[in-house]
Amino acid sequence: MVTIFRIGHRIKRDSRTTTHLALVARSFGATRMIIAGDEDKNLLKTVDKVNSEWGGDFQLEIIPYDEWKNFLEKWKSEKDNKIVHLTMYGENIPIFERSEDFINLKKQPLNLSHLLIVVGGKKIPGKVFRYADWNIAITNQPHSEVSSLAVFLDHLTSDALQIRFSNSLKQIIPSIEGKKRYIGEKKNEN
Amino acid sequence: MVTIFRIGHRIKRDSRTTTHLALVARSFGATRMIIAGDEDKNLLKTVDKVNSEWGGDFQLEIIPYDEWKNFLEKWKSEKDNKIVHLTMYGENIPIFERSEDFINLKKQPLNLSHLLIVVGGKKIPGKVFRYADWNIAITNQPHSEVSSLAVFLDHLTSDALQIRFSNSLKQIIPSIEGKKRYIGEKKNEN
Repeated sequence: MVTIFRIGHRIKRDSRTTTHLALVARSFGATRMIIAGDEDKNLLKTVDKVNSEWGGDFQLEIIPYDEWKNFLEKWKSEKDNKIVHLTMYGENIPIFERSEDFINLKKQPLNLSHLLIVVGGKKIPGKVFRYADWNIAITNQPHSEVSSLAVFLDHLTSDALQIRFSNSLKQIIPSIEGKKRYIGEKKNEN
Repeated sequence: MVTIFRIGHRIKRDSRTTTHLALVARSFGATRMIIAGDEDKNLLKTVDKVNSEWGGDFQLEIIPYDEWKNFLEKWKSEKDNKIVHLTMYGENIPIFERSEDFINLKKQPLNLSHLLIVVGGKKIPGKVFRYADWNIAITNQPHSEVSSLAVFLDHLTSDALQIRFSNSLKQIIPSIEGKKRYIGEKKNEN
């Protein structure tokens, strides 16, 4: 599945938002997320803990902020690789969804391993818009990179809301009455 | 359209997450959001600023945390009113979407003014699960109330991603090439 690239992470200010972003990436089926920004041991630890409790093998990696450009150039240099940049300035997703490009992305799920989804913080370098094959908006209104990533992944793949994670210690038994119930401490090898 | 109720807001820790939540509520078409938590002038100011720049008349109100119970009881006491509680312990949305209840909610858009969507913070009082008519999960995995609200509103209404806001000073001309362009300083009365 896809790789997420977060450009910008300031340990003090962004810690919670980047954590939420990583958890969305994991829950909605991304394989890995790379962050260009401050080293952040707590963030790595949080994601490790979620992986070991809730399963799967989502990968998180932090590189120095200044590496963002090299990373994008390397991605672009590899055959068949593509970049989506989520930005409120882009084409709104209900329009993009009707394009041949999007239909092809959805049709060929194997290709998603060639897809990088870039999400920015407050200030995104102008060049990122030009590295992107598609600049896509989730509404052209200001809200949050966390919600944008979730909605995009939900629209991109048919099973984003129903990913099954292997090797989870905890698992919820969903209930409309909402009683909290776990299958706790049970290894689940599906 | 719907009303959002956020239970819990600690001014230091939650300021950014609650701001993102309010912006999602506004962008995806909620009429108003009520927060039970700390008074927060900056939060109110941020939302006011977004309203005046980007348009619409989204309402934000903060009530003391302890009022959450009265608020839910009052909501429930009014005829036809319903409560959805977004929680990772609830029925996952792809399942709920196939239910008659959800189909009726979607069919009768006027009814959405009777719908309260409750989103919690880290610790949600257990009673909230019982006030809710439906406890609904956006995946049964941990991620973020910001992404949960966005995905739920996107699934609930057909136009959540394409709301038009009246009286905006700024408006984006969407572009897949992602050049930043505004219709700036223009009153838009649609």
